[in-house]
Amino acid sequence: MPNEAHMKAALQAYIDAYNRNDLEAVLSLYDDNATVEDPYGTLPKQGKEAIADFYGSAMANGATLELAAPIRASHGDSAAMAFDAVVNLPQGQVRVRVIDVMTFSDAGLITSMRAYFGPSDIEVPEANQSSAS
Amino acid sequence: MPNEAHMKAALQAYIDAYNRNDLEAVLSLYDDNATVEDPYGTLPKQGKEAIADFYGSAMANGATLELAAPIRASHGDSAAMAFDAVVNLPQGQVRVRVIDVMTFSDAGLITSMRAYFGPSDIEVPEANQSSAS
Repeated sequence: MPNEAHMKAALQAYIDAYNRNDLEAVLSLYDDNATVEDPYGTLPKQGKEAIADFYGSAMANGATLELAAPIRASHGDSAAMAFDAVVNLPQGQVRVRVIDVMTFSDAGLITSMRAYFGPSDIEVPEANQSSAS
Repeated sequence: MPNEAHMKAALQAYIDAYNRNDLEAVLSLYDDNATVEDPYGTLPKQGKEAIADFYGSAMANGATLELAAPIRASHGDSAAMAFDAVVNLPQGQVRVRVIDVMTFSDAGLITSMRAYFGPSDIEVPEANQSSAS
């Protein structure tokens, strides 16, 4: 089982790689047969190719990931982190509040990722909000 | 599937009930056959009786739960939250950094809880730390 320090370092490396738009570095953290369920509640992407497609599209949005609290490890094969994905638009800032849970292989690669956020976790600029009645 | 607002309210109710030491209110959030894996990586407790025993012991520690970031919902049957469990001891404060992920039944009750934290997520008062060499 990967140790806590390794898993936490991998999640920090994920944040850092994402924020410098380094797709290869993000993919290098994943096992070849990993699954990515982002958001949780949708069909998981499986395998490096599908995951590469997913991150290629996701990173094109230009979001910056900001940790909302220190990364957590576990007594098992997983680590988790709360972060905000922030996109700066001309009309203001969009902030998506997410918790990611990753499981790891014995070799220390991510075997699954699940991203917990729903429509209610997306903050949009005031002027963009649909008027709720 | 339970809606996002319901799941977020249930997690807030969990925090509030825990903090007023209200075991019955915590248990009322759980489905009769729910599992609690706390911490993740250990054998889950299953069913109301086992879960009652677990919380009875846990709450005796006198920890206060403090949200570290807003509660997240999802596009599925789950919600998640990052919080710190804080215990004030004569020699200082112990802080355990946790992320909980809960799944919900259609009826809106918690069917599973997983608590992600490891030994490295426990901050102990300076004087209590073993001297690492």
